[in-house]
Amino acid sequence: MPKGIKNEVAIIGMGCTQFGELWNKSAEDLILECFSEAITDSGIDKKDIDAAWFSTVFDEENVGKSAVRLASTLKLPYIPVTRTENFCASGTEAFRGACYAVASGAADIALAIGCEKLKDTGYGGLPDFSSLLGTDNRILFPNVTAPGMFAQAATAYFAKYGLSATEGKRALAHISSKSHYNGSLNPKAHLRKPVSIETITNAPIIAYPLGLFDCCGVSDGAAAALVCRADKAKEYRKDPVYVKAIQIGVTSGRELYHTSWDSTYVETTYRAGIAAYNEAGITNPREEIDMFEVHDCFSITELLTYEDLQFSARGQAVADIEDGFYDLDGKIPCNPDGGLKSFGHPIGATGIRMLYEMYLQLQGRAGKRQIDDPRMGLTHNLGGFPALNLISVGIVGNTL
Amino acid sequence: MPKGIKNEVAIIGMGCTQFGELWNKSAEDLILECFSEAITDSGIDKKDIDAAWFSTVFDEENVGKSAVRLASTLKLPYIPVTRTENFCASGTEAFRGACYAVASGAADIALAIGCEKLKDTGYGGLPDFSSLLGTDNRILFPNVTAPGMFAQAATAYFAKYGLSATEGKRALAHISSKSHYNGSLNPKAHLRKPVSIETITNAPIIAYPLGLFDCCGVSDGAAAALVCRADKAKEYRKDPVYVKAIQIGVTSGRELYHTSWDSTYVETTYRAGIAAYNEAGITNPREEIDMFEVHDCFSITELLTYEDLQFSARGQAVADIEDGFYDLDGKIPCNPDGGLKSFGHPIGATGIRMLYEMYLQLQGRAGKRQIDDPRMGLTHNLGGFPALNLISVGIVGNTL
Repeated sequence: MPKGIKNEVAIIGMGCTQFGELWNKSAEDLILECFSEAITDSGIDKKDIDAAWFSTVFDEENVGKSAVRLASTLKLPYIPVTRTENFCASGTEAFRGACYAVASGAADIALAIGCEKLKDTGYGGLPDFSSLLGTDNRILFPNVTAPGMFAQAATAYFAKYGLSATEGKRALAHISSKSHYNGSLNPKAHLRKPVSIETITNAPIIAYPLGLFDCCGVSDGAAAALVCRADKAKEYRKDPVYVKAIQIGVTSGRELYHTSWDSTYVETTYRAGIAAYNEAGITNPREEIDMFEVHDCFSITELLTYEDLQFSARGQAVADIEDGFYDLDGKIPCNPDGGLKSFGHPIGATGIRMLYEMYLQLQGRAGKRQIDDPRMGLTHNLGGFPALNLISVGIVGNTL
Repeated sequence: MPKGIKNEVAIIGMGCTQFGELWNKSAEDLILECFSEAITDSGIDKKDIDAAWFSTVFDEENVGKSAVRLASTLKLPYIPVTRTENFCASGTEAFRGACYAVASGAADIALAIGCEKLKDTGYGGLPDFSSLLGTDNRILFPNVTAPGMFAQAATAYFAKYGLSATEGKRALAHISSKSHYNGSLNPKAHLRKPVSIETITNAPIIAYPLGLFDCCGVSDGAAAALVCRADKAKEYRKDPVYVKAIQIGVTSGRELYHTSWDSTYVETTYRAGIAAYNEAGITNPREEIDMFEVHDCFSITELLTYEDLQFSARGQAVADIEDGFYDLDGKIPCNPDGGLKSFGHPIGATGIRMLYEMYLQLQGRAGKRQIDDPRMGLTHNLGGFPALNLISVGIVGNTL
């Protein structure tokens, strides 16, 4: 794992659109909207941006090949613009590109934007999904669906730790109910109403044991971040947010097929977490991290991530969930903005949307869902499946 | 334009497959082949690689979503792998990502690989090409083809500078003939035989005035580069090649539709060139650069680039061409390896293939096409059309 760029880069402006079924807005509208908020928030001039990174996945269908599209939409001619595509973790990847440019000295101020309009593409049917794996994996995994892959992790977890279906589903429902409650406090979320545990456990099954409310929705949205050198950040604002770590781990996938992997953890999350903790100098995440955003594409993904990131000990996530440890008023609130559960997952945007929430919370600007005096937050952005994936872990804080 | 990372990064190993119609090799075969050459060339251990960037464009059809694909193929689990896609300049973009990671201190050694298998996808028919522009531009440019767009630049250039069709086509044929000759000396080129100016001028027209030999072919191929900090490079080899500049410029496209742009130059190339010269401290490229690789998707593209990069004065490219200024034995050889003309254009690989030639030349390892004692080389990688594009310009040298 690379050493990283700890404390060399700061966030000085962010923006995020409302997420949802945005039939009346184009990708360009969304890009402009989040960019406009970020640039206003930062107080910089557009001309000060030296380079940009743009994250979008299903670009052909909706945003267009994106380097030129971003330059065109923002009227930023002649500066470098880079498209990044790294599965569902693409948003964090754009942010990492911008951070490296600043840390290397190549750019003074860099922009990261993620955008996706999934509703226009009929993404619910996953038209391109099997192709994510390439030709030979397409043969290995015919008709793979995301709910199906993650559902297997849930049943494996229940079996390993002796949970009855009722106990397991109740713990997963607690996660979804918590996120829906948090989303109900967030004007930018797609789904903004509380959902009871009873409603969740009684909902139609999508892929057993995951029901309708164990799955995130499909949304449109965009988010943006402006970064500069950490030692210059206070020239722009009094309350910059510092990048303590930004790490990505990629599994080669195949080694897992030949080992004793039992589907109850995501090795890449564990390893990317360790790399991020090393970069940020964190030895005990359960004590040192105040809040976090995880990639809750499914409720079980969030549960596994509690353990993979070492917030809960192996096999102890359910106890922590039932204790309210991860609730908004708990010890370490998870997904205070409502998560993918309330925002959906416009793929290119999600990683930056997560950072946006940590940024607002660290500045004390998170409104009704504000956490008491947080110092350090983490984001976890997953691309792929439990066995075949890449994981990005970012850590941000409000002091150098 | 960003300041860049001049002299902070060095290339310590490179590899390149033969390019061609490689029906008997998979994308994985090609990735392994160029990686194997690069790692052997560098002498490092695979475990020393901290992070990787992978360039591929039509990934769904051939290589598979590439971060996991690269990690899987090379058995490099748990390190960061980033897919870059920036039109036809994607290869250079992967290289830039690796350079920034090293220059930022995040990685000690980083890998950039580009691969594309175009023959498998039926790329000749450009199945996805209009989609490169996004939905609204698809409406603006129905049935756009690359030869058609570049052909317009050729007729505009002839008209502006008072060239008859015969004079103009002869100059373009000189370019193609020169590149085919260079390619005939290169065992890794796809097309490896000399072609006479007469054969070229008499060939069937593709889009007037461009004939068959004014267009590059369609190939499969892959190339790889390993980079480290410049001040560490001599620990790995006695003859590292230093990155003097790496810049990318993106046009927003639209401003050109409303100005007096006359199609005889590519503004982005001019601007990216200036940024690269500034980064490398070059004031007179015609005197200070010893050789270069340009993105000769069409012969006219190479001609315009001579002027946009300030090697030839405006309107003077034809005189320089006829003088043999850019021939292998000329003052500044262009495309000594044969260029896209001889290699074809497996999109994700091209930018790194260009760097590979500059690397070999600077080390005196270019065999029959070796240039006499070169010190500094440039690569020009174009994505898009004359009016709508992104351009990457890299400069490398063999002294710090």
